[in-house]
Amino acid sequence: MVKRINFINPFGSSAYDDIIRKTLSHYCASDTELAVTHLENCPTDIDFFYSKHLIEQSLFEAVMVSEEQGYDAVIVGCLYDPGVRVARELVDIPVVGPLEASFQMAAYYGHSTMVLTDHRKAVPYIQDEARLNGQGHTVRGVDAIDWFVKDMINDRRAVADDVVRLSREAAQRFGAETVIMGCTIIAAIYQEYLMEGGEPSAVPIINPNLMALKMAEGLADLHRSGGYFVARQGFYMKPTGHFDAEFRNARKVWNASKPIFAR
Amino acid sequence: MVKRINFINPFGSSAYDDIIRKTLSHYCASDTELAVTHLENCPTDIDFFYSKHLIEQSLFEAVMVSEEQGYDAVIVGCLYDPGVRVARELVDIPVVGPLEASFQMAAYYGHSTMVLTDHRKAVPYIQDEARLNGQGHTVRGVDAIDWFVKDMINDRRAVADDVVRLSREAAQRFGAETVIMGCTIIAAIYQEYLMEGGEPSAVPIINPNLMALKMAEGLADLHRSGGYFVARQGFYMKPTGHFDAEFRNARKVWNASKPIFAR
Amino acid sequence: MVKRINFINPFGSSAYDDIIRKTLSHYCASDTELAVTHLENCPTDIDFFYSKHLIEQSLFEAVMVSEEQGYDAVIVGCLYDPGVRVARELVDIPVVGPLEASFQMAAYYGHSTMVLTDHRKAVPYIQDEARLNGQGHTVRGVDAIDWFVKDMINDRRAVADDVVRLSREAAQRFGAETVIMGCTIIAAIYQEYLMEGGEPSAVPIINPNLMALKMAEGLADLHRSGGYFVARQGFYMKPTGHFDAEFRNARKVWNASKPIFAR
Amino acid sequence: MVKRINFINPFGSSAYDDIIRKTLSHYCASDTELAVTHLENCPTDIDFFYSKHLIEQSLFEAVMVSEEQGYDAVIVGCLYDPGVRVARELVDIPVVGPLEASFQMAAYYGHSTMVLTDHRKAVPYIQDEARLNGQGHTVRGVDAIDWFVKDMINDRRAVADDVVRLSREAAQRFGAETVIMGCTIIAAIYQEYLMEGGEPSAVPIINPNLMALKMAEGLADLHRSGGYFVARQGFYMKPTGHFDAEFRNARKVWNASKPIFAR
Amino acid sequence: MVKRINFINPFGSSAYDDIIRKTLSHYCASDTELAVTHLENCPTDIDFFYSKHLIEQSLFEAVMVSEEQGYDAVIVGCLYDPGVRVARELVDIPVVGPLEASFQMAAYYGHSTMVLTDHRKAVPYIQDEARLNGQGHTVRGVDAIDWFVKDMINDRRAVADDVVRLSREAAQRFGAETVIMGCTIIAAIYQEYLMEGGEPSAVPIINPNLMALKMAEGLADLHRSGGYFVARQGFYMKPTGHFDAEFRNARKVWNASKPIFAR
Amino acid sequence: MVKRINFINPFGSSAYDDIIRKTLSHYCASDTELAVTHLENCPTDIDFFYSKHLIEQSLFEAVMVSEEQGYDAVIVGCLYDPGVRVARELVDIPVVGPLEASFQMAAYYGHSTMVLTDHRKAVPYIQDEARLNGQGHTVRGVDAIDWFVKDMINDRRAVADDVVRLSREAAQRFGAETVIMGCTIIAAIYQEYLMEGGEPSAVPIINPNLMALKMAEGLADLHRSGGYFVARQGFYMKPTGHFDAEFRNARKVWNASKPIFAR
Repeated sequence: MVKRINFINPFGSSAYDDIIRKTLSHYCASDTELAVTHLENCPTDIDFFYSKHLIEQSLFEAVMVSEEQGYDAVIVGCLYDPGVRVARELVDIPVVGPLEASFQMAAYYGHSTMVLTDHRKAVPYIQDEARLNGQGHTVRGVDAIDWFVKDMINDRRAVADDVVRLSREAAQRFGAETVIMGCTIIAAIYQEYLMEGGEPSAVPIINPNLMALKMAEGLADLHRSGGYFVARQGFYMKPTGHFDAEFRNARKVWNASKPIFAR
Repeated sequence: MVKRINFINPFGSSAYDDIIRKTLSHYCASDTELAVTHLENCPTDIDFFYSKHLIEQSLFEAVMVSEEQGYDAVIVGCLYDPGVRVARELVDIPVVGPLEASFQMAAYYGHSTMVLTDHRKAVPYIQDEARLNGQGHTVRGVDAIDWFVKDMINDRRAVADDVVRLSREAAQRFGAETVIMGCTIIAAIYQEYLMEGGEPSAVPIINPNLMALKMAEGLADLHRSGGYFVARQGFYMKPTGHFDAEFRNARKVWNASKPIFAR
Repeated sequence: MVKRINFINPFGSSAYDDIIRKTLSHYCASDTELAVTHLENCPTDIDFFYSKHLIEQSLFEAVMVSEEQGYDAVIVGCLYDPGVRVARELVDIPVVGPLEASFQMAAYYGHSTMVLTDHRKAVPYIQDEARLNGQGHTVRGVDAIDWFVKDMINDRRAVADDVVRLSREAAQRFGAETVIMGCTIIAAIYQEYLMEGGEPSAVPIINPNLMALKMAEGLADLHRSGGYFVARQGFYMKPTGHFDAEFRNARKVWNASKPIFAR
Repeated sequence: MVKRINFINPFGSSAYDDIIRKTLSHYCASDTELAVTHLENCPTDIDFFYSKHLIEQSLFEAVMVSEEQGYDAVIVGCLYDPGVRVARELVDIPVVGPLEASFQMAAYYGHSTMVLTDHRKAVPYIQDEARLNGQGHTVRGVDAIDWFVKDMINDRRAVADDVVRLSREAAQRFGAETVIMGCTIIAAIYQEYLMEGGEPSAVPIINPNLMALKMAEGLADLHRSGGYFVARQGFYMKPTGHFDAEFRNARKVWNASKPIFAR
Repeated sequence: MVKRINFINPFGSSAYDDIIRKTLSHYCASDTELAVTHLENCPTDIDFFYSKHLIEQSLFEAVMVSEEQGYDAVIVGCLYDPGVRVARELVDIPVVGPLEASFQMAAYYGHSTMVLTDHRKAVPYIQDEARLNGQGHTVRGVDAIDWFVKDMINDRRAVADDVVRLSREAAQRFGAETVIMGCTIIAAIYQEYLMEGGEPSAVPIINPNLMALKMAEGLADLHRSGGYFVARQGFYMKPTGHFDAEFRNARKVWNASKPIFAR
Repeated sequence: MVKRINFINPFGSSAYDDIIRKTLSHYCASDTELAVTHLENCPTDIDFFYSKHLIEQSLFEAVMVSEEQGYDAVIVGCLYDPGVRVARELVDIPVVGPLEASFQMAAYYGHSTMVLTDHRKAVPYIQDEARLNGQGHTVRGVDAIDWFVKDMINDRRAVADDVVRLSREAAQRFGAETVIMGCTIIAAIYQEYLMEGGEPSAVPIINPNLMALKMAEGLADLHRSGGYFVARQGFYMKPTGHFDAEFRNARKVWNASKPIFAR
């Protein structure tokens, strides 16, 4: 019996679905059925926090629908882990973010790690995440490769070369034993480069998509066998009781009126 | 020449405007013009993270409009500090949240503090905020009074009595010298109780609305005299360059299609 | 194609193999072949650090042999995570400890957690582990149930009842949303109790055996598909170069002369 | 009705009063009456901890006299925040230090900050202050410009040029978005340079004198309207009870015999 | 050849010299010559920060004179460690504070510790010290016994009984394995109680006077054999160069005019 | 009456005894009788964690025998502090590790410190130790000099020159005022270089052997005069009760069968 995982690219664009599918399928468990999907009616890029917020609103819908469709787990495929914690308020299936999953699994790859993300604006955001969710004090730093996602997809070889060079420099500067590739698309580009025979980085690079996949598969197994649950008496209390009617109303209206983006 | 502050109640309801206006006006600087406003077309309560997210989307609009209308500073009147950091990405006037302002000013009231918030779900949220934004290690704990906002407004005396009793118990349990009242509405109810001659709490209680007001006034002064600016090369980089068109488009469409809530 | 996991009970006794096998098999992935084994020629209990050290020496051998036998991952089944980090120096297959795995996966079960271990002596040990390897600041405390492992196995119902009662009390005292059961055998006893229809704890209890199993399965997949590696330039540098001859000699002599325990 | 602020230069010299008055007056609230004063009978410089200690003894007197003279708030104008915490033990008006105020308000200027102070000896002192009183983990580092105060005042342009150059270098080295100018006099010199049309630093520089001024004005408002108080049951317990007579005696004798400095 | 240690009671009173001498002499190394002295012309109690500051001014003189008199090390006998760090700026002999020494040596007595001090006002002060100077995270809490020093000396048996009872309660509340007695005089009273055959506390109590003595003896040995030095390029830079004349002048004037206390 | 200290070189080799004896004797207290010993039947080097573990097993025996032979304290002479914490479980005499002792005493030498160890593999290990046992936040970094112990002993002058050069560079990079020499043998070589008239390092270097010696002497004094004890109710609970027979058996068998190393 298969476990079904929905890897949602949280962008209003199908541009990144192929490379994720291409670089992730090989690593699936033998009984995993992996869907790679994207959002609609929301910004195509998540570079700024305003667009991240609009995207998250669409994502909540996609996560709730995933649960209704019988998925066993959802991955939100961006290193911002956009909307992941709020989404856990809404559904009973596991919701996995690649940044948190990488923090959680990095210890198996080396004693310390760091994050090398796409551009400068994300650095302080990820530093805060590392402080709240990094394993102990093992995340030694965060730095940026200074590429925008929309440009990367068109010049993959240059991205892969930068990854190899900048990972080595950054790991030395921060004293980290491994590097978490801090952007799902960069990680996919680097993985594709390896699959095409590229020379691996001297400093071990952790692909966050793989970490999210394995975490999602494990939790999906537990969900199916009765071993997964979310504590509902605190942070993840569900909108029940007096809030239930309001929630249903809000969700319905949102769905009726959601913005139509020109792209 | 007056400084104009917009205290936005981030709720789709006018129910809380009066008590905020009533309990805050007395403390304004002599040259402050204080507006107390609320949002429209969004949930009336912020108890759950899904509704907080929808409210924030409306709030961004309200903050951008406030700048256009010439306000010198904005206060987002809820202890979640909803949308405060994202809003700073969008405008050049100061955006102040009462929780952060209370963390920043608590040291003038005592050596350590704690937060007593409304209900259980907010406790871990505020703990994370204290870790990221508390002054040093001075926030000794977070606890809840277990009232929902919508019920409080109708039984103010019972709320005030609970505030006095639970502040004393919580401060002792956590070893804190002062208590930040962790809900703008509870804080206003307690302030009204004091204005009506109620016996003050034995443990000093910090009213976050006052802290936000004073921080907003100081920053408004600086904004008017050329002493305020936001570093735009990192976290608060504005949506300019290739993103500008997309941002304008997104905002326009959002405004055209925003959900109509039945209340 | 199956993935083979060796769950090693790090005790010189077969007494705990059955209950682990009984309570873990149900949760295996469909393509997992789970072995539950134990050590020989070493102490039967790990209550004291001296015996833990002797056990670890035997464990290293068991882990190296597991790699030679083609296992895809090893779990060291005790909440001390005995020898886990040193073992990673010696082999290229993933070595998983249930305490670290529980810290890593607890965030999917609730916003914060704590550990309830067997007896007092383990509390400061686990506190240090939480400081080095806990996710952010989410491990709110460590407490003990005050049972010795050798007694527990004979009075399982009393153990399960204590687990339910003490988890609730401890979670409230530390303000934690979930409880990591801090002993593999207690966790198995509680799991058996649930399988026999026992009333679940009001506070969600995380079974560390399940967390270790899922982490091991995910890493085993990655190991088989070429996605697992250990950074060998730092902490986990392997005994190669001038050390290699000495290592081989040491290991051979150890194997020839290892102590014979009377039990 | 005006609020009266006493900005005390904690040096036994009038040499720095003019530049503070010149660079601060423009930023006062419309109803602020700002006095800029200095100490007498104490060392002219605060470079060493022994002289800092003697200066603080004189400062306590000046703060108590300020309260008697009806000031609504006091600023102690040196980045060591000399005597600030002890002074709060003695008076009921707010006592503000520019370092603490800068830590408290820096978040409105950028996501992270650092301090660039005058000379090497102050660096570890400020690092300790950042650990105790910095907002979360936002103070990324402390560095020195290596000028002594007494030399700076005579070569202002060279100081301003160094500020611009070294702020950029230091911010990059520590990954900070803004720089707190870690010396009140350097900050005033840089402010004067800006007022005379100098090119602003590429990295935003926070003037601690402005931060202290705004914090003092806000607290002065609250003090006048009944919204300011100090928790007196712990760290800031006042010398009352059995200590009162001794305190009065000590203060009187100190005043009669205080050292006369030759300058 | 003996090593000479000056244990300075930082109080303007000889009231505590005898009990320190009585309870410390037994523990001296065989070649230690221990002097127990006190200050003059300063407050008799250190309960408040204002009096602590005056006392420190007198202490600096006493420490400089101790170096001139050939002492090999100085202990400042109060748990506030009053003036210890500033004094290191002034002399080349070791200056030891009992609180810092207790933090440094507590690990030999148990895995974790806490401080039980005299009264409430000292609790936050010691918490800050623990954060800056505690060993790792081993100081689990600080609490007060609520006795004033001047009263204790007259009712020693009651103090000893409270120490035994409150240490047990506090250690359990904070989960600490040992208790540092947070007041030199309480510690001496408890030591005297033990010497007179009193029943030892169930929870091990660390006497800070002993810790300071042993640290001072070790450093005195090193000082005499050329193994002690203070880094003078940073925090402990001595007042030399342009500051030297001012320092000499200040010290001379201070000595001529120091306040005469009536007692 | 003398105090007897056993400095155990935790290596299966006598190669390092002479240099330790030569560079440590001068600093002993006048009543100290210092033995410098080594282990047998275990690896000659401790570079890898597997050999460290075997060495520790031999060390436990040596520590227990030291207590039986009447030593007043034991020093384990390697910067890994190998087996130190476990050994405290087994004996009632003080067991001192040079790394922990250096962390504890570094504050007397400067405001901050760092560790410069031998090779890369030890860096993360010492970082973890600094986090658990460093004084506050004073350990600013850890770096490696990249020499293996077995090579150092044959080219001492080159080692001393590297120590001087690399200490200066590392202290500047991490902003540390002093450097703890992170290898007992490097420290001895540098001490010998000084004794032979070598130019001292510009950045003060802390010799961990001296720190361990002074800590051991102080604790030995306390042990002899009744002032030393170990809390036995938690982490350091001794193997008594039902475990005693097993412990005795294990130890006897270990002694009979311990591995014979060919060297």
